[in-house]
Amino acid sequence: MTLIPSPDRPQQADRPQPLGPGTAVAAFDVGGTDMKAALFDSSGRMLGLRRTPTPHRGAETAEAVLERVEELLAEFAHTFPHVRPAGIGLIAPGVVDDDQGIVRESVNLDWNDVPFRRLLEDRLHLPASFSHDVRAAGEAEFQLGAARGFGTVVVIIVGTGIAASLVVNGRAHVAGGYAGELGHSIVDPRGARCACGARGCLETVGSAGAISRRYAEATGQEPVGAREVLALASTGDPAARRIWNEAIDALALGIAQVTAILAPEAVVIGGGLAEAGDALFVPLRERVDALLSFHRRPLVLPALIGENAGLIGAALRARAAADRSGQAS
Amino acid sequence: MTLIPSPDRPQQADRPQPLGPGTAVAAFDVGGTDMKAALFDSSGRMLGLRRTPTPHRGAETAEAVLERVEELLAEFAHTFPHVRPAGIGLIAPGVVDDDQGIVRESVNLDWNDVPFRRLLEDRLHLPASFSHDVRAAGEAEFQLGAARGFGTVVVIIVGTGIAASLVVNGRAHVAGGYAGELGHSIVDPRGARCACGARGCLETVGSAGAISRRYAEATGQEPVGAREVLALASTGDPAARRIWNEAIDALALGIAQVTAILAPEAVVIGGGLAEAGDALFVPLRERVDALLSFHRRPLVLPALIGENAGLIGAALRARAAADRSGQAS
Repeated sequence: MTLIPSPDRPQQADRPQPLGPGTAVAAFDVGGTDMKAALFDSSGRMLGLRRTPTPHRGAETAEAVLERVEELLAEFAHTFPHVRPAGIGLIAPGVVDDDQGIVRESVNLDWNDVPFRRLLEDRLHLPASFSHDVRAAGEAEFQLGAARGFGTVVVIIVGTGIAASLVVNGRAHVAGGYAGELGHSIVDPRGARCACGARGCLETVGSAGAISRRYAEATGQEPVGAREVLALASTGDPAARRIWNEAIDALALGIAQVTAILAPEAVVIGGGLAEAGDALFVPLRERVDALLSFHRRPLVLPALIGENAGLIGAALRARAAADRSGQAS
Repeated sequence: MTLIPSPDRPQQADRPQPLGPGTAVAAFDVGGTDMKAALFDSSGRMLGLRRTPTPHRGAETAEAVLERVEELLAEFAHTFPHVRPAGIGLIAPGVVDDDQGIVRESVNLDWNDVPFRRLLEDRLHLPASFSHDVRAAGEAEFQLGAARGFGTVVVIIVGTGIAASLVVNGRAHVAGGYAGELGHSIVDPRGARCACGARGCLETVGSAGAISRRYAEATGQEPVGAREVLALASTGDPAARRIWNEAIDALALGIAQVTAILAPEAVVIGGGLAEAGDALFVPLRERVDALLSFHRRPLVLPALIGENAGLIGAALRARAAADRSGQAS
């Protein structure tokens, strides 16, 4: 098996990590294109972080991913023989029921009703957790990052798409895997058709993917990244400016809606778009404020954990699974 | 003190009530115009239901309401000497922190940061609860009505305004009194200015009050009730038809948004507009369904408890307060 380090993202094995001491575990973040894997030792250090293509075998993709996980664990055992993971955490996108450890549907992975947690445990003979990728990232922010200390908080990951992780009164709200689909909450019922089939979802305007796609459509040029659209907007490019502003308007509207409904103390924003920093957060806070009236304003905060938040959240849940299992035995 | 029975609403003291056996309590539903009061005996029967004008004395309105509560209790003691309430439940509109028993703001009642639960307990020497009117109605539906048996459920009261009561994983979500403001969630950022100061709130289009007001504005006629607008719509009146349809569209959009975010198993609709029955629920369910894609469809159900749901919820909470106090002593 060839392990391909991501060319555009630095390996972060040596960067200090916020996980803290605890049970050693292995964590896997399975995406549609590639999967990340890392080992976490008992001091909480992340070891051997690597990115490898997600194996796709149609209806057998779950089996192929399990095989790959086994291979990666074998490789970790060889490279880090002193670190013996006592739990496995695996995360994936889609409709994932964290409580049951089942993926209801994950279009990019050809998964339907796969009891992934049980499959992991049966195969690896280790306690495992299986969770939604964005809820795992939210858990990392809630336990270790910008969402820490709040009772009710929404962590929104804005990248190619948009999804949110909800903590309500201190507890993750899962709703069978269907909660937190803020990216597929409608901001304009007369808006563009979304990949999900609905019309005018927040994701069709407010995501980094939408900014890139809409700019290419508006100009007829080759797609550039959302960050480049922002750079063009700051030089006065009218299409870039309009598309960036519309994205912020849509995000502000989505945040205002979730504020009216849930009244979170804070909204934490992570994912690629959050890397825009003040260019995003300053106008976003202003527009959220302008949309609200008597509502309690949430703090609108950048995520702190960074691009490996999902993996770190998976490690937290793997630890919890290992610790529960240790207590039970 | 004169007690004025509501002319247009039958007194329901003899109607069987769903409360069930428990501690005898008194409940008060304080609105901007009038307040309802009733005694609940240990079999759960509602006794002496009456409606009386809310006393308004500017900044002293809280004191005036407390006096009126005391008078009503004295009258109940006289009329029903065998029923001795062991707890008091009072509910009001506004930003009410049920957990703390404090009203943060209630514009119609000139209340700001009034610790109403403590004031009630100090004055009446009885355990008391003080809650938001719509959350109390939601609790009645959750414990006894259409919302029973669901883990995550939204009860929306659609009347003059719109507010919702949220139960998330079996627990009422209060958020300091700011949760559940679905009526002040924006469905159209370019829409009409709402009384709350924001623009395009669901309440400006989807409430019974909005239907009535918008029909009067569209036709230049004297305002008629939402039910009459519905009757006109069914005879083909174009303005009535448009306004009724726009109300259902807005309600469907609000429900779709709360579905994307919270994924409730059910949405229960009560209040005056719900009395339209199938004329509301049939098209509403169709439009909610059309707006959603992969989302889990919530059941959209009519409320069951009826117009006294708030008062019954207040009684449930009064019982809980009395029972807690009994256990503590």
